[in-house]
Amino acid sequence: MTKQKELLYQQIANDLEHQISKSILKIGDKLPSLRTICVEKGVSLSTATQSYLELESRGLIESRSRSGYFVSYSHGQFKEVPSVTKPLKTSSSDDPQAVIDVLIKNASKAKVLLSSGVPSVALLPVARLNKAMTQAMRELPDSGINYERLGNLKLRQQIARRSSFWGGELHPDEIVTTAGCMDALAFCVQSVAQRGDTIAVESPLYFGIMQLARNLGLHVMELPTHPVTGVEIDALEKAMRVNKIKVCLLVTNFNNPFGSCMPASHKKAVVELLEKYNVPLIEDDLYGDLYFGNHRPLTCKSFDESGLVMYCSSFSKTLAAGYRVGWVAPGKFLDKVSRTKNYHSISCNALAHAAVANFLENERYDSHLRTLRQTLYRNTLQFQRCINDYFPAETRVSQPQGGFHLWVEFDKKVDTIDLYNKAIQHKISFTPGRLYTLQNQYNNCLRLSTGVIWNNKMEEALQLVGKLANRLCAA
Amino acid sequence: MTKQKELLYQQIANDLEHQISKSILKIGDKLPSLRTICVEKGVSLSTATQSYLELESRGLIESRSRSGYFVSYSHGQFKEVPSVTKPLKTSSSDDPQAVIDVLIKNASKAKVLLSSGVPSVALLPVARLNKAMTQAMRELPDSGINYERLGNLKLRQQIARRSSFWGGELHPDEIVTTAGCMDALAFCVQSVAQRGDTIAVESPLYFGIMQLARNLGLHVMELPTHPVTGVEIDALEKAMRVNKIKVCLLVTNFNNPFGSCMPASHKKAVVELLEKYNVPLIEDDLYGDLYFGNHRPLTCKSFDESGLVMYCSSFSKTLAAGYRVGWVAPGKFLDKVSRTKNYHSISCNALAHAAVANFLENERYDSHLRTLRQTLYRNTLQFQRCINDYFPAETRVSQPQGGFHLWVEFDKKVDTIDLYNKAIQHKISFTPGRLYTLQNQYNNCLRLSTGVIWNNKMEEALQLVGKLANRLCAA
Repeated sequence: MTKQKELLYQQIANDLEHQISKSILKIGDKLPSLRTICVEKGVSLSTATQSYLELESRGLIESRSRSGYFVSYSHGQFKEVPSVTKPLKTSSSDDPQAVIDVLIKNASKAKVLLSSGVPSVALLPVARLNKAMTQAMRELPDSGINYERLGNLKLRQQIARRSSFWGGELHPDEIVTTAGCMDALAFCVQSVAQRGDTIAVESPLYFGIMQLARNLGLHVMELPTHPVTGVEIDALEKAMRVNKIKVCLLVTNFNNPFGSCMPASHKKAVVELLEKYNVPLIEDDLYGDLYFGNHRPLTCKSFDESGLVMYCSSFSKTLAAGYRVGWVAPGKFLDKVSRTKNYHSISCNALAHAAVANFLENERYDSHLRTLRQTLYRNTLQFQRCINDYFPAETRVSQPQGGFHLWVEFDKKVDTIDLYNKAIQHKISFTPGRLYTLQNQYNNCLRLSTGVIWNNKMEEALQLVGKLANRLCAA
Repeated sequence: MTKQKELLYQQIANDLEHQISKSILKIGDKLPSLRTICVEKGVSLSTATQSYLELESRGLIESRSRSGYFVSYSHGQFKEVPSVTKPLKTSSSDDPQAVIDVLIKNASKAKVLLSSGVPSVALLPVARLNKAMTQAMRELPDSGINYERLGNLKLRQQIARRSSFWGGELHPDEIVTTAGCMDALAFCVQSVAQRGDTIAVESPLYFGIMQLARNLGLHVMELPTHPVTGVEIDALEKAMRVNKIKVCLLVTNFNNPFGSCMPASHKKAVVELLEKYNVPLIEDDLYGDLYFGNHRPLTCKSFDESGLVMYCSSFSKTLAAGYRVGWVAPGKFLDKVSRTKNYHSISCNALAHAAVANFLENERYDSHLRTLRQTLYRNTLQFQRCINDYFPAETRVSQPQGGFHLWVEFDKKVDTIDLYNKAIQHKISFTPGRLYTLQNQYNNCLRLSTGVIWNNKMEEALQLVGKLANRLCAA
């Protein structure tokens, strides 16, 4: 397992946040003076100051002039998490495409983007990626203009090396590189399921996955899902026992849009079910590297001994979506997936895959991830504070421990497509909940993307969305 | 239609080649002296010399010291073209995967590569592509690290502009960019056909297409095909009338591996059949820009008014296969194909698509194509001469007017997998004919790739393959 390199000031900030979250330090409480921190922790004044600035940027404390620092916020104040979802048990094909088309049509209108599927470019290492790309042009045979048939070896080596972070032991030869994670998911689905088969998934779930499954002629069975612990194990077992599930697809860590992260014990239980019913799992771990805690969460693949887990991921959410660099470790389906890739696409983009391999080769990626995680965590707290301050009282919101999506559940009265149409007139975009299901549900929910540069404009936008939602509640 | 910029020396060479091909100049005939050419054509001595050097590089004339230039070769000597293929009328699923696996296993052994699917890198503009890529990093918003959802506009504009070369009038909005041509073909097939449907294709045909179709659960119906004029129109009509053809896929210009190029009248006839039977056509025009004559051949899309033709191509055979830049103009299936692309892959590689767009923006691409075409034409003549000189007397060989593949048909006694196994021991690779069909046929055929740097090593390799084939004939 990876050990996050925690800087001293972060350690102090984390300790104090822990005290705030446990209500040892309550709202309004004065924090120790900077001098006290210096003495107690044996650190310099600059380190002490930095730790307080960190807590301030997390929205947990505030400085009052000449009086020192005070607790301004607490986890205890957070809204309740959304309810466990209870999607219909039968598959459905009620298509959210009409909603998607509206979003696409309005895409250019939004000035405050709370709907993005990737972190803001300002949070990504553009200049260093350009360097890695230039290096790839120089180093690749033929500057990468030829087919790259076997999948970039250096990239596969780096991915294999990093698998130890989630308790995996991947070998480079077990990894098939793909043009992004969707490509990997598509090849996996096509390798094990056919038109007419049923795929079991979490609900809510990223609409692209459900549309892909439908495009391939599959029935999509949405399963009850817990906002904290992910898919309900009992429901999954029942589906496997009663229905003919051909394949499961789960986003096990920081699911988009729900933010749930399956505890290790659930992941183990899922793998046991797979083995019992001989059902393959496509595990989409796109967000696993974006944990807020001290450790990267495990995966179902960590417990997979029978090879039933096809483990997919990419660098689209942490580095460069436009590079199209993803991969899959397909377990016992290696040959099938590898051939499906060859039949459908022959080769990946040689340069982009080499560039990411270059980027991963030294400490750059880990250092970038540390910064990105911290930013996303701060943003998440700020978003949650704003929701608490500005959204209707009965609003519920997820408390993800990673990733950059918040799931907001309003009173049933609030139609979030209606809310979206009002918000976009103010040039603010988010994603209505209806997108994340093939059934007629989640109409009172929405997804917010926290992968932004946090500033007053964001706070004002959330305030406005809250105001609009309050009006709909009152109507 | 494009008008090839023919240089003066090429014009003279072409005129003389024409006389040679019509046997106005016969083998052994002395050519006019350089001085005569100068006077008759009103050109400089250097131009006259260059035109003779050009004919020499085409393998058509030779200089004898102190005696001048003589015709050493003639088209009249060329081997007969292969027979019209007569594949079984029923679909079949006799898989050539075992042969493919052998080729993959041996790939690194070959030193003389007569089996490559792309022209040798030495024939491609690597340095200028690197420049175009660097320019893309500089010019793209966010250096191309973000999704590129609508397909690079500049690229689509350039593709639309170039469509006039084959009598098309594409609009940028009618074009869907893809990660290479296979990606485009896969999206097209998936948009109009389902598991269990039948797809009609030429035979022989690039194995990747047939494997893709089978991977998608389609029945593949191979149609009789003429080595010069492509698929037999009568057979196609009968297939549409009698069988339930869901979709056709034709490589209309310089088909790989057969080299056939459908005459414009056949293309028109095909489009009329499509309309009569309401069957969509996936037209793969991957090699259309690599014509040897004065004009780019038309396409079925040139005659398509009902939108039934999905026109696919890429820059993999002319610029950079490793960039994965392809496209499709899906006609009336635009929405379907566009959505299938979004579901399966979300976005193309932003940088590579921008780089190719940059490369196309000025005269660079056309100038590169002119050189490439000339080289491929010369190589093709040299290959044909060697086949004539070294291969068994009864050998037949295609006479493609473009592209870089030759189809060689031996006496039935020659098993080309056997021949391959012998050749690879001498580090020479080609592709056995069995690969290009799902039926048990073409076992006495092979494909040669002419996209090489022509030199003595190539001549010696062909001589050796001929020797090995002669032995198999005698056995």
